Amino acid sequence: MAVYTDVSPEQLEAFLSTYDLGRLRAFKGIAEGVENSNFLLQTEAGSFILTLYEKRVNPADLPFFIGLMQHLAARGIDCPQPVKNREGVALGTLAGRPALIATFLYGTSVRRPSVANCAALGTALAGLHRAGADFTASSRVNALSVPGWRPLYEQAKDRADTVAPGLSALIADELSVLEPAWPSGLPAGVIHADLFPDNVFFTGEELTGLIDFYFACNDLLAYDVAICLNAWCFEPDGAYNQTKGRALLAAYRTVRPLSDQEIAALPMLCRGAALRFLLTRLVDWLNVPPGALVRPHDPKEYLRKLRFHRSVTSPADYGVAS
Amino acid sequence: MAVYTDVSPEQLEAFLSTYDLGRLRAFKGIAEGVENSNFLLQTEAGSFILTLYEKRVNPADLPFFIGLMQHLAARGIDCPQPVKNREGVALGTLAGRPALIATFLYGTSVRRPSVANCAALGTALAGLHRAGADFTASSRVNALSVPGWRPLYEQAKDRADTVAPGLSALIADELSVLEPAWPSGLPAGVIHADLFPDNVFFTGEELTGLIDFYFACNDLLAYDVAICLNAWCFEPDGAYNQTKGRALLAAYRTVRPLSDQEIAALPMLCRGAALRFLLTRLVDWLNVPPGALVRPHDPKEYLRKLRFHRSVTSPADYGVAS
Repeated sequence: MAVYTDVSPEQLEAFLSTYDLGRLRAFKGIAEGVENSNFLLQTEAGSFILTLYEKRVNPADLPFFIGLMQHLAARGIDCPQPVKNREGVALGTLAGRPALIATFLYGTSVRRPSVANCAALGTALAGLHRAGADFTASSRVNALSVPGWRPLYEQAKDRADTVAPGLSALIADELSVLEPAWPSGLPAGVIHADLFPDNVFFTGEELTGLIDFYFACNDLLAYDVAICLNAWCFEPDGAYNQTKGRALLAAYRTVRPLSDQEIAALPMLCRGAALRFLLTRLVDWLNVPPGALVRPHDPKEYLRKLRFHRSVTSPADYGVAS
Repeated sequence: MAVYTDVSPEQLEAFLSTYDLGRLRAFKGIAEGVENSNFLLQTEAGSFILTLYEKRVNPADLPFFIGLMQHLAARGIDCPQPVKNREGVALGTLAGRPALIATFLYGTSVRRPSVANCAALGTALAGLHRAGADFTASSRVNALSVPGWRPLYEQAKDRADTVAPGLSALIADELSVLEPAWPSGLPAGVIHADLFPDNVFFTGEELTGLIDFYFACNDLLAYDVAICLNAWCFEPDGAYNQTKGRALLAAYRTVRPLSDQEIAALPMLCRGAALRFLLTRLVDWLNVPPGALVRPHDPKEYLRKLRFHRSVTSPADYGVAS
């Protein structure tokens, strides 16, 4: 649920007058995205999504995000394509916020991904990694990779055990294992870093779109795979579904091969990915403002996933074909 | 901002399978309507609004609302047209709620109506009253007409003065004037009863749609006119704009004449309409639940309007041409 900023008809009309999109046909706030305000915008030129960037997005990062979407869309990735105004500029200002009009993507997200969905996701993820390989116009450090975890832990450690007994000690232990052992030297590039099912659209079993590039950054490509294994291949009861993992990984590798080093690193990368979402969810969970419009995700889901990864003895446990 | 009920992809797919609307193309919660959950639904057959009726709507009223929209749409009124499923039934059940698919109306609402907007509204309102004249399949008492006001006052009177000094006594005075003197015998029929600017769509200056019929009921037609004079013809500074009132009334009368009795009753009807919205806003204002998703409207806006109506000495003050 996300419309944080009110846009008056006069403001919208003035903003649209700088674009070649014809007359306004409809404009509705939509409940999509947690960080920003999003609106369905229909004009004589078609359907679009208007995004106003709210406080949690650093304006300095916007050229990276928008440049990346332009780059990917130009390479045939089904992602929102930023629309430029008459002066050739995509990023504008509306209601005091940085604002972007992007093309509307059809499709709906799945809540319980099927094996076929996981395979389609693997193909799309590898396609994204390939298409992003020559995006060198700008770069963005992953603020939520290893160096970002301990500060999150510091915010949460005193109250972590209110969420689950022993959680604080478990996270401390994970940090002591992951920080010194985190893989380096693996292939790096642009990663999505948040490619959860709600950021992927399907029509039937066809994957029709990837959205929400606002965590995208430069990092290890296999770390993005690990994030997706976490987000797509666990069942509601907490069990890892090796069939789904196998489908995701096999489909990925048909488009972009994984090196032996990347495969060997998967268990560590999956632990790190689980810890990263456990930590951000935990901090959000412990800091829900009164009257919050958004219910935070349950951190315990990622605690269960982390416990699975701690039990893994080989990359084969994820469904990697040898 | 209104998405109160979560709809899973599986629930949506099962629901849509009972309609002839082709494959799903997009589905997004939208921030429109306060009482119900609304979703943009796009299928191969076009764009629709899916509404789930939440607790504030009495299910027993739904056949009236839906029958009325069908009736009006069949008579060329630009309102949402209920879509029937394969069994010829419009009202269904989705996610445990009564649910309706209706056609999507293009256009956007204005926030500061122009004189031309007020004239277009007057024409549309009279057209609505004419088209509703033969809607006799069912009827609905106006729960928010005179008999409904004192119970609202009883809920609010002890804390009313926290909103504005002297408010409790002023409402008591209004009730003592309006209850015995409320007009009777005027032309009655189906009224919208909530035709505020956010329920009316325009494309440019052309009125393209009327929405949100969930306060519609049988009542005095001129009371609907009074509600619209209140909602459309005051300026943000609280002043009544007689030019807008004149435009609204003149346009209305070109489609449906107002009798001398209706014109004579306008000051009393406008006072009543102002009191009705003052009372409901006051009760909502005093009873905002913690963590509410919806910010209540300011009751003081209608206190100012009520004070204006108390100063009116003749229907001519509203811009009625003699």
